[in-house]
Amino acid sequence: MAAQVLSERDLAFMLYELFDAESLTARQRYADHSRETFDAAIATGKAVALKHFLPIRQKVDTNEPTFDGEKVHLLPEIKPALEAVVEAGLAAPSTDYETGGMQLPLIVTNAAQAHLSAVASTTLGYISLTHANANLIEAHGSDEQIDTWVRPMREGRFMGTMAMTEPGAGSGLADLTTTAARESDGSYRLSGNKIFISGGDHELSENIVHLVLARVKGAPKGVKGISLFIVPKFLLNEDGTIGERNDVALAGLFHKMGGRGHTSTALSFGEKGGATAYLVGEENKGLMYMFHMMNEARIMVGTGAALTALTGYQYALDYARERPQGRLLANKDPESPPIPIIEHADVRRMLLAQKAYAEGAYALCLYGSQLADDEKTAETKEARTKAHTLLDFLTPIIKTWPSEYGPQANNLAIQVMGGHGYINEHPVEMFYRDNRLNPIHEGTTGIQSLDLLGRKVPMNNFAGYRAMLAEMHGTVEQAKGSELSLFAEQLQAALSELQETTNIVLAATAEKDLDLVFSNSVSYLEMFGHIVIAWIWLRQGMAADAGLQANPHKQDEQFYRGKLQAMQYFFHSELPKIYHWSKLVRDIDSTSFEMKPDWF
Amino acid sequence: MAAQVLSERDLAFMLYELFDAESLTARQRYADHSRETFDAAIATGKAVALKHFLPIRQKVDTNEPTFDGEKVHLLPEIKPALEAVVEAGLAAPSTDYETGGMQLPLIVTNAAQAHLSAVASTTLGYISLTHANANLIEAHGSDEQIDTWVRPMREGRFMGTMAMTEPGAGSGLADLTTTAARESDGSYRLSGNKIFISGGDHELSENIVHLVLARVKGAPKGVKGISLFIVPKFLLNEDGTIGERNDVALAGLFHKMGGRGHTSTALSFGEKGGATAYLVGEENKGLMYMFHMMNEARIMVGTGAALTALTGYQYALDYARERPQGRLLANKDPESPPIPIIEHADVRRMLLAQKAYAEGAYALCLYGSQLADDEKTAETKEARTKAHTLLDFLTPIIKTWPSEYGPQANNLAIQVMGGHGYINEHPVEMFYRDNRLNPIHEGTTGIQSLDLLGRKVPMNNFAGYRAMLAEMHGTVEQAKGSELSLFAEQLQAALSELQETTNIVLAATAEKDLDLVFSNSVSYLEMFGHIVIAWIWLRQGMAADAGLQANPHKQDEQFYRGKLQAMQYFFHSELPKIYHWSKLVRDIDSTSFEMKPDWF
Repeated sequence: MAAQVLSERDLAFMLYELFDAESLTARQRYADHSRETFDAAIATGKAVALKHFLPIRQKVDTNEPTFDGEKVHLLPEIKPALEAVVEAGLAAPSTDYETGGMQLPLIVTNAAQAHLSAVASTTLGYISLTHANANLIEAHGSDEQIDTWVRPMREGRFMGTMAMTEPGAGSGLADLTTTAARESDGSYRLSGNKIFISGGDHELSENIVHLVLARVKGAPKGVKGISLFIVPKFLLNEDGTIGERNDVALAGLFHKMGGRGHTSTALSFGEKGGATAYLVGEENKGLMYMFHMMNEARIMVGTGAALTALTGYQYALDYARERPQGRLLANKDPESPPIPIIEHADVRRMLLAQKAYAEGAYALCLYGSQLADDEKTAETKEARTKAHTLLDFLTPIIKTWPSEYGPQANNLAIQVMGGHGYINEHPVEMFYRDNRLNPIHEGTTGIQSLDLLGRKVPMNNFAGYRAMLAEMHGTVEQAKGSELSLFAEQLQAALSELQETTNIVLAATAEKDLDLVFSNSVSYLEMFGHIVIAWIWLRQGMAADAGLQANPHKQDEQFYRGKLQAMQYFFHSELPKIYHWSKLVRDIDSTSFEMKPDWF
Repeated sequence: MAAQVLSERDLAFMLYELFDAESLTARQRYADHSRETFDAAIATGKAVALKHFLPIRQKVDTNEPTFDGEKVHLLPEIKPALEAVVEAGLAAPSTDYETGGMQLPLIVTNAAQAHLSAVASTTLGYISLTHANANLIEAHGSDEQIDTWVRPMREGRFMGTMAMTEPGAGSGLADLTTTAARESDGSYRLSGNKIFISGGDHELSENIVHLVLARVKGAPKGVKGISLFIVPKFLLNEDGTIGERNDVALAGLFHKMGGRGHTSTALSFGEKGGATAYLVGEENKGLMYMFHMMNEARIMVGTGAALTALTGYQYALDYARERPQGRLLANKDPESPPIPIIEHADVRRMLLAQKAYAEGAYALCLYGSQLADDEKTAETKEARTKAHTLLDFLTPIIKTWPSEYGPQANNLAIQVMGGHGYINEHPVEMFYRDNRLNPIHEGTTGIQSLDLLGRKVPMNNFAGYRAMLAEMHGTVEQAKGSELSLFAEQLQAALSELQETTNIVLAATAEKDLDLVFSNSVSYLEMFGHIVIAWIWLRQGMAADAGLQANPHKQDEQFYRGKLQAMQYFFHSELPKIYHWSKLVRDIDSTSFEMKPDWF
């Protein structure tokens, strides 16, 4: 039996039992939908993934794109596979009917794209980035821009990128030097170099729409002088047909350890005098607009990391069930047959850890999608604001936790398979490489930790922080009287620790050097992330408990017992780590801060 | 400035200030040596590494060996590079003068090969495995076997392998099925399949000497029926010249994620009736003999992992010093220039963690080499026995700790470099892939943890366990009156926790299911490993403190301060984790044990 890509039972559990996605059909926007249409979308996503991407997965990984000085050559199978996604309506199924979408809730969209994301991995990035780009233009562009650029992107004729990073600035966007000069016709001439632009050049689409951060001549220095531009690969003729090549050139391809389904490029703008560029919104507000896309991309990164962890877990699980090796420790009889390695407790530990990491991470991402739905379509304004506040607050955690623990899950998938996990006989070594990018792109773990502690926690008089704590305390109260009260108490203690630690560290900012106080910000993020995942596991435990109470048939009983055991694993083997992290934060541990560069 | 491969200052610190290698020159075997000859060997190792391996490192990684059905094709530059190692006398410099060696102490050999191991990575494996193979035959083979096989291996004309793993058995050696039948001339005919044989076929040497585990017909089942054979690729003529091809065929090459300098092969023995094989020692004692090589290989694995971590750290450090990006948190002035990223406290945290992991791991490996020297050449029999006992006890930790934390260091090297660490512009992504094999081969982390807790701790009435505790308590007592007394107290508390935990878990074996009690054995190994590394860091701290007291010149002062800060980092950010692991072990946490295969 070949491994399944993802557990459909688990997907259904998360969607319907944990997050009650079916209730969304009561909202006007989703009135035409039902559990049947949701399930059909998920089934379609799975079918496209298995038919078009699974057969080429290894080939994509082992055949890196090449650049002949003129064009980028991708594996030819990639184009029809991506077209199949568009044809199935799965490129942007959450968009409006009138722009060709299905008006699926985002949480269902996430599940419908889950198999695609798990199998196609980074290849799907061409599509996801395109629609994140289109979403930004829809939100902040002019009607004409929407008509010109968004429509063909939604139709799959154009693709889109985000072009922020520069060779000299990296994550330090304040120092970006790409410039734009206003022309008399209202357009701009843009010049500069960008690196690490995913999907920056290829022949997959008629055109590529780059969203580029640049500085208009004379703009203030720093982040307050950044504007956002649409810079197409090809200019358009009056009638909308593809015109001449814009002054955008591919400078080269990067050779990545993984994620080889999605080219990473260096682009030169304006080598021949200036690329034609169209301002989005107002000058100097570009970074704010770009955050629209970056926040979406951050959640996409977390989701991709979680799904890569989930699928690696399925392969490891399948292997552990099939592979006979060794005997139980008490059995010294060499005449007895070897047992499947899943019978060894340490193998079950490694599988449980993967289950706890991957299912915890993906549940958190689905929760993020649920908040995005509520932000848009919840009944009351209050509920919409609350959802927005929570999602904004949680974004650094949704980005980071799956990105850090997804690779750890893939690491354990390799370990379960031993030498067989290290070679390309199984895809887990590829997952391990693919997933390693996630703690870096769209803001490193360090940057996310500063965003959380320095910005998101105190923001708006602690609104997001308080809302998130209230959510978690609510679950604790619910669970207290139940079978799971011991877990609820553990989470409650962790929440108290978190609150005290937060108070101490923020109080310290008034007295001490900011770089010292925040030098343990990653430990703070680790702590907060683990508590949020414990909370989401307690919610999964409660849903499983409810499932068990409802007297389901036997196979479901085993599924629910597994959920409860994974929850227990997380509470016993992971949650207690927060006390170590919190001590470093509370003590304002100065070891890293005081280390001098010359001492290394 | 290009990154240095390793810090020579640190190598000298470890060798002379931490482990006083110079004192070995008082021993008869090393009487001709002096610090000058030691340093010359280290300088030679570095020179060969930089001249022959550094220029081809990336090429080796990106040009996997191929098999045309008849021969294996390696990158042609590999052969002269390996020959340069042999010509420089660095293949086995610890061996006797009379067999062409330099009679260097093993601790100096380790340092002399450090640059080679760090740069050549797995390519050096052809040589190291060859000499580990020769060492085994020297210890357990007949004089004739030593003359026939060891001599040409020492001369670099033959190479050697170890062939244990079989497709159906994996780590479960009890189930291996390769068979050997005794012929009238005293030789055997051997048939079976072996996989994951490093260096199993190539054209680098005149011959390849496989050491193969097999079962003589009629032998008992299980590990008590395993014998060890010499099976050459080519038979030898009476006069010792290369004769006809033996019945050993390459079945295929494995495609590995990393470690591409060393082919991994599947070998078929006896497809044409039986490979000619020569028994080593007595029948059915093969596994015992093989442990001679396996123990050596385990320490080689730990050392390789530590050196890969160390060199990755040097690249990350160099990058962090050179790369300007961002500003300190309190500085909101965009007109001020960006600072080198090493100025950011979180970057220093990632560098400190790498320093703490890599220098801790390598110091432990050098300690292992020192024990191997003492085992062989310490003045008294008592001292030799003690060294043997300690080394035998520590082997699972020397194998595992660097293998688990080396990759974590490489992970952080990537993170420091961000997107630049993920592409092949820098070697750190290769280090990350290379190092991932180390927790698997020569016994996985799980297997090492059972070896430690189930075998090494109780063995010989706790002799190794007690000896190791006594060593660590000795250091605590020494440090107590010093500047470092707070660290000594922390280590003492950790030692008490370790002793209590050990007592509890071993007492439980009398009452409970062995598979339950040992289901947290990896946590036990983690705890023990962290305590040993804290101890080795305390010793480094004491040596640095002594260096500071001795009023050195300014540059050394910074070096010593860095050592002390890295020690502090380990004691603050790492050692406290043992209490989490010990709780799982003491509680005999049953989560993994009780998880049912059907619940996943």
